[in-house]
Amino acid sequence: MSEDLCVRITSIDETWIERAAKRQLSLTKPPFSLGHLEEAANRLAAIQQTETPNVSKKRIYVIAGDHGVTAEGVSAYPREVTPQMVLNFLRGGAAINVLATHGNIDVKVVDAGVDADLSSESGLINLKRIRGTANFATGPAMERSEALRLVNAGIALADRSFADGISLLGIGEMGIGNTTAASAITAALTNEDPASHTDRGTGLDDPSLARKIEVIRRAIAVNSPDPNDPIDVLAKVGGTEIAVMAGLIIGAATNRIAVICDGFISTAAAAIAVRLCDPVRGYLFVAHRSVERGHAALIELIGVSPLLDLKMKLGEGTGAALAMHLVDASAKLLSQMATFCEAGVSDKQ
Amino acid sequence: MSEDLCVRITSIDETWIERAAKRQLSLTKPPFSLGHLEEAANRLAAIQQTETPNVSKKRIYVIAGDHGVTAEGVSAYPREVTPQMVLNFLRGGAAINVLATHGNIDVKVVDAGVDADLSSESGLINLKRIRGTANFATGPAMERSEALRLVNAGIALADRSFADGISLLGIGEMGIGNTTAASAITAALTNEDPASHTDRGTGLDDPSLARKIEVIRRAIAVNSPDPNDPIDVLAKVGGTEIAVMAGLIIGAATNRIAVICDGFISTAAAAIAVRLCDPVRGYLFVAHRSVERGHAALIELIGVSPLLDLKMKLGEGTGAALAMHLVDASAKLLSQMATFCEAGVSDKQ
Repeated sequence: MSEDLCVRITSIDETWIERAAKRQLSLTKPPFSLGHLEEAANRLAAIQQTETPNVSKKRIYVIAGDHGVTAEGVSAYPREVTPQMVLNFLRGGAAINVLATHGNIDVKVVDAGVDADLSSESGLINLKRIRGTANFATGPAMERSEALRLVNAGIALADRSFADGISLLGIGEMGIGNTTAASAITAALTNEDPASHTDRGTGLDDPSLARKIEVIRRAIAVNSPDPNDPIDVLAKVGGTEIAVMAGLIIGAATNRIAVICDGFISTAAAAIAVRLCDPVRGYLFVAHRSVERGHAALIELIGVSPLLDLKMKLGEGTGAALAMHLVDASAKLLSQMATFCEAGVSDKQ
Repeated sequence: MSEDLCVRITSIDETWIERAAKRQLSLTKPPFSLGHLEEAANRLAAIQQTETPNVSKKRIYVIAGDHGVTAEGVSAYPREVTPQMVLNFLRGGAAINVLATHGNIDVKVVDAGVDADLSSESGLINLKRIRGTANFATGPAMERSEALRLVNAGIALADRSFADGISLLGIGEMGIGNTTAASAITAALTNEDPASHTDRGTGLDDPSLARKIEVIRRAIAVNSPDPNDPIDVLAKVGGTEIAVMAGLIIGAATNRIAVICDGFISTAAAAIAVRLCDPVRGYLFVAHRSVERGHAALIELIGVSPLLDLKMKLGEGTGAALAMHLVDASAKLLSQMATFCEAGVSDKQ
């Protein structure tokens, strides 16, 4: 399995940001009055290398995987909820389904490592080789080769999206136990104590939160993930869905497609991707600031500010679905607004 | 002209909020994981008196008016930009047009007091009696009877929207000089020095900002607007478009329609409306936190938190258009998501 994941990625061209910023000044509005939407649009211009970007064809991948660390009692919900929610996604009953329909977004559901036989489910993309990770409190979550295979599978999903004409990708996830993996990744990448980056997930009480922190400390001690080797971190304390998401982000950048990560867990995948290939950050948007305390460190690590702050903590790509409306809006404003000249409006005195 | 503006308004029924909150707990997501969207949806449930609210039919009124105080040099743009932008709205070239099309929102443009003959423009709702307010640095902006007439005209627009089946109203504005009016209203309603509530508007430099603050201090001193009489504040230091917006908000509450105000100037109108009829706040959403420093005091005054913070300062209802997507999303999530029981998903352990 090749470890050369970044060879086709180039940094976005900053001169396109300057050209877009100049066009923004010609549009019928006070300078900079669209705030973060102008910054988003200017970056889309650089990603697509045009002053009139278009991101109207949207897709979100919801990647599911199970986590062996649930054996340590780190989640408020039972493990069987992962496959149950996959079926809910496929039948259209989950929050992401409602938001995707609302936002005219295609949703693809992916089994990266769910601990259930879902092979008869039509509409489910099956990437599974292991039925969930091993318990990383006692050893590595998965083999390095499996982590790499899943990252490459994620890149292939982005390639397919490019072939389908997708211009804006979103990533989301489902996996009971996966805030534990995301907190472990955050602790590993930042070299900081897990207590600073661990929170209640789907709703832990105080004793369970203390246990979760202890479990992550043990996982870091047992596995010694190497912060300078993101694939090592991913394999030792990550998850199958997180590996596919990291690949999707790398693949999006490879194909010059803008990509939005969602909340805490998908931003952990983004942090892995950025550590692997720094130029990825130019293609990356963060949908929202999650309630999970570990999210702030990841946001700082990747250096991209969230668009929304709605005190959400759901995952599934729900924040990405909402943020897509804003990112698409930013592109349409830059591309479609009249200029002062076209509209016969007087500019500043 | 009747001053009984609030007689038909009732407070939203809190028991519906409790019923909606209970339904939220039955949906396939961790409790409270949709954050502010749950609060928004629960309030929509109370506004519409149903556990399955629907706000899919959306309309934004963009109200334009001119301001005599521009004679004092308080704006970075010349006064003729107001009618020029009205034409831009009617021809579809402005930011609000792009965002309304993007969000499937009907836009109505209203002339409340623009200093130009626009009578031949089709598609423009004409409420005008005065071609802009008088310079409130030297006397009242308009007569009390004119302010009241415009508020009642705004209520009539909300009545018409109700008849048209509109379930979500947004308000926006255009008027060179109207951040000066909004800052004066904020200073008057809070009884605080205008310096705390005055900012650069469309882009004033430091000397012009100092002049703007001085002008507002003079306006308050000359007119002595009575903070306990919101119509007095509106007539003395307000604007024609602000009066119509205040009426639209009151009319929305009267017709039990949820209404979203946009940024600084429309929130000044909302503050007038809330001071006139306190129960209005139950029907009111604030789209976004504006860059204008006076906005924070108004947000506190009406007691409703903004949904977005994108560092915008444009007006026109642009923030309202973006927030409508979120408010509609919140209603759809509450109304359309599967319950744990329906989806066969296990609830918390």
